[in-house]
Amino acid sequence: MKSNYADDSLTLHTDLYQINMAESYWADGVHNRKAVFELYFRKLPFGNGYAVFAGLERILQYLEKFHFSESDIAFLSEELNYKEDFIEYLRKLTFTGSVYSMKEGEIVFANEPLLRIEAPLVEAQLVETALLNIVNYQTLIATKASRIKQIIKNESAAEFGSRRAQEMDAAIWGSRAAIIGGFDSTSNVRAGKLFDIPVSGTHAHSMVQAYRNEYEAFHAYAKRHKDCVFLVDTYNTLKSGVPNAIRVAKELGDKINFVGIRLDSGDIAFLSKEARRMLDEAGFQNAKIIVSNDLDEYTILNLKAQGAKVDSFGIGTKLITAYDQPALGAVYKLVSIENESGEMKDTIKITANAEKVSTPGLKEVYRIVNRENGKAEGDYIVMADENPQDEERIKMFHPVHTFISKFVTNFEARQLHTQVVDGGKVVYKSPSVQEMKQYAADNLELLWDEYKRSLNPEEYPVDLSKKCWDNKMRNIEEVRNMVHDIENQ
Amino acid sequence: MKSNYADDSLTLHTDLYQINMAESYWADGVHNRKAVFELYFRKLPFGNGYAVFAGLERILQYLEKFHFSESDIAFLSEELNYKEDFIEYLRKLTFTGSVYSMKEGEIVFANEPLLRIEAPLVEAQLVETALLNIVNYQTLIATKASRIKQIIKNESAAEFGSRRAQEMDAAIWGSRAAIIGGFDSTSNVRAGKLFDIPVSGTHAHSMVQAYRNEYEAFHAYAKRHKDCVFLVDTYNTLKSGVPNAIRVAKELGDKINFVGIRLDSGDIAFLSKEARRMLDEAGFQNAKIIVSNDLDEYTILNLKAQGAKVDSFGIGTKLITAYDQPALGAVYKLVSIENESGEMKDTIKITANAEKVSTPGLKEVYRIVNRENGKAEGDYIVMADENPQDEERIKMFHPVHTFISKFVTNFEARQLHTQVVDGGKVVYKSPSVQEMKQYAADNLELLWDEYKRSLNPEEYPVDLSKKCWDNKMRNIEEVRNMVHDIENQ
Repeated sequence: MKSNYADDSLTLHTDLYQINMAESYWADGVHNRKAVFELYFRKLPFGNGYAVFAGLERILQYLEKFHFSESDIAFLSEELNYKEDFIEYLRKLTFTGSVYSMKEGEIVFANEPLLRIEAPLVEAQLVETALLNIVNYQTLIATKASRIKQIIKNESAAEFGSRRAQEMDAAIWGSRAAIIGGFDSTSNVRAGKLFDIPVSGTHAHSMVQAYRNEYEAFHAYAKRHKDCVFLVDTYNTLKSGVPNAIRVAKELGDKINFVGIRLDSGDIAFLSKEARRMLDEAGFQNAKIIVSNDLDEYTILNLKAQGAKVDSFGIGTKLITAYDQPALGAVYKLVSIENESGEMKDTIKITANAEKVSTPGLKEVYRIVNRENGKAEGDYIVMADENPQDEERIKMFHPVHTFISKFVTNFEARQLHTQVVDGGKVVYKSPSVQEMKQYAADNLELLWDEYKRSLNPEEYPVDLSKKCWDNKMRNIEEVRNMVHDIENQ
Repeated sequence: MKSNYADDSLTLHTDLYQINMAESYWADGVHNRKAVFELYFRKLPFGNGYAVFAGLERILQYLEKFHFSESDIAFLSEELNYKEDFIEYLRKLTFTGSVYSMKEGEIVFANEPLLRIEAPLVEAQLVETALLNIVNYQTLIATKASRIKQIIKNESAAEFGSRRAQEMDAAIWGSRAAIIGGFDSTSNVRAGKLFDIPVSGTHAHSMVQAYRNEYEAFHAYAKRHKDCVFLVDTYNTLKSGVPNAIRVAKELGDKINFVGIRLDSGDIAFLSKEARRMLDEAGFQNAKIIVSNDLDEYTILNLKAQGAKVDSFGIGTKLITAYDQPALGAVYKLVSIENESGEMKDTIKITANAEKVSTPGLKEVYRIVNRENGKAEGDYIVMADENPQDEERIKMFHPVHTFISKFVTNFEARQLHTQVVDGGKVVYKSPSVQEMKQYAADNLELLWDEYKRSLNPEEYPVDLSKKCWDNKMRNIEEVRNMVHDIENQ
């Protein structure tokens, strides 16, 4: 690479076309028109019934620091040959818009805005790539973690995936997202430091290899660590690993706290049951069995069905890469923009696929909670000037199959967006990651179990208000007329 | 998060168990024993016949700066409660070992060491997580890119995946890996700056929406950009997008360079053929058609089979996340360690699965190139004190199915490892990314096409020398005897 830039800046972490558009907007004098973009995904990942929103704290850091550095400017000017007048403009640019967002740990669904950005067109455009990059990954992993945790239930869950993560940012932000989704700890020490989250871990096969036998390796480990978990599968789990762990635990007695053993290969269901029997027979009924080895919600469900004796799960690759669906696919769409007369005009993106047509206009999302049973009836998307709480009764209908509908009364409408940036200034202080985790757990309680099961969950309703729906139809009609006019030119 | 650490350091980017082991090694006085670790993967990804190694430059940066920062030390001491004597030791620690590595862009295979680390035990252990994190991702993406490029062949290939990448490091290092694997450009401007690689991009749907119609948007774009690619699928590709592109290109004539159009949704095979016809009829036979929309090697192969008219492919999600197999699974194994008498002793990790048993000892990898046809006969792993070039004839046999063997004569044995770090000092200067790309392309020429096809490629031989094989069998036997002794205690 050319060099390590001391002023490497995330402001340049954008697609080239954003800068090309910025230049055109600026040259055409439309760059400061007020624009409204929404960030949302169209389909829940993993066939899950809900997602867990994450990424906001990183976004706020990014927006707060949004400013092209000297080396960014030099690259744009000298290597990409942007002209000096535009470069001068970029040099002074900061983010001056406002942002409304779900909180991290919020339970979210397809086709509802996770964030709304209201900013001068050029600024809203330039931040698109980074915002998507952050939300797509962090929300994906928080969701995967929550899904796995639904299966694990009461046993503890540790994130062990750093070595298989897609580069270093994924390792640390993925660790953090896993905690938000319900995990208890991560193996990544840097993530522990940066995010104030619990770290866990014991020793590796290489330590046993270094001592050439388990007996000496376990003793060496115990010399310096009061809490001991011994890894028992370097050579032969039942013939060598477990017997050596028991032998060392007996020899050391109260000098250590023999927490238990870890299994990292082989037939976990069988080995865990045998190991449990051996530990119990040796008097170590309280010793825990920790397992790892390419686990995910499917293997864990199967281990449980087989009666595996597991107290704690270490989950690596399948969680940190969201192995069965490694991308969320969130998009960022312009829904409204100021015209030459200073009026806001809604905009739409049309495709042949009904689910992919964007929903125009500045909108708010409410969670409609039934006051009788405390459960969510669905989410309700309205135009910003509507307040569902003003209504006695609301009609919720499916945004594609509109004949599916229900009336809801005696409800509380909870607004899901919070203003987090106001005129470029961050006005929201993120809670701790543990608080986000609690927030997610509390909000999952609002959902019927049918939305939370991992296989074939019921579809949670995310519906548009009548006004919102009519506005969408009007916009579609306008585009149809425009296309028709072009055809007949 | 607690705070933004100005001295955030990658040295803490490790699993907690590495630090726990480090403490035990140090307390037991074995931390400075010379250890040899090898980094390798066991199975080629995507069913591909080869992989493209990437990640070395990042590793060298990491090793060169390996040192716990003040805030790292404070976290280890105050939050994780490591004792002061060990903390004092960590405070001064740097990486003092030696590293031998494949070059970036090298064509590599399963079960051959990509890197060999020779270092004091404690140092080699602490760097494991970061090394795997880097190589696993970058090699995966370089391989996926090369695989896609094998199908694309002569058309150009752009990496467009930043918004779907697994956080920011993946976006930029993945862009770089894509170029090494054969791609021509990336959309990520920061990657362009950091790695001196070509960036490409034009405009998005939001620009068309901002102007509310294509005609004005294309004109606005053309005001400031000589080279124009117009995105034609915001409303209706054939009825509105392509006609508007043609109209604007005709109106502007020589004022712009009408490079072509981009299709980002719909039936690409059909639309590209229709668009080609429309462009040709309008006299724009040289206008190119650029397509994107969840492409990978499978969809591209199908587009080609359908006679799609495509000049350039933009590949996002499926490349940058390695969607169909988002983790490589490389491991890092101790193969030899100094004993108490100062002698090097080989070590092995045993499992019930033959392919997962590690190969002990300090080894070298040679590519055996047939002098008659210039093609590779296979890779040959030998003990470090062997040199296959000394032999008249070598017997290459399959490392699992040993009865599969062949004799090779009249060969050149090319050593694949280069020393890149010597006693902690980086002694290798990475070439440019473009040179790495060329290196990969040149080395692919050594391979018969049968190893390079995307479906059911032939298995390229990676074989052990007799000495290497015998050493492995001896180590397995030793472990068996040890387990037997424990059973009979």
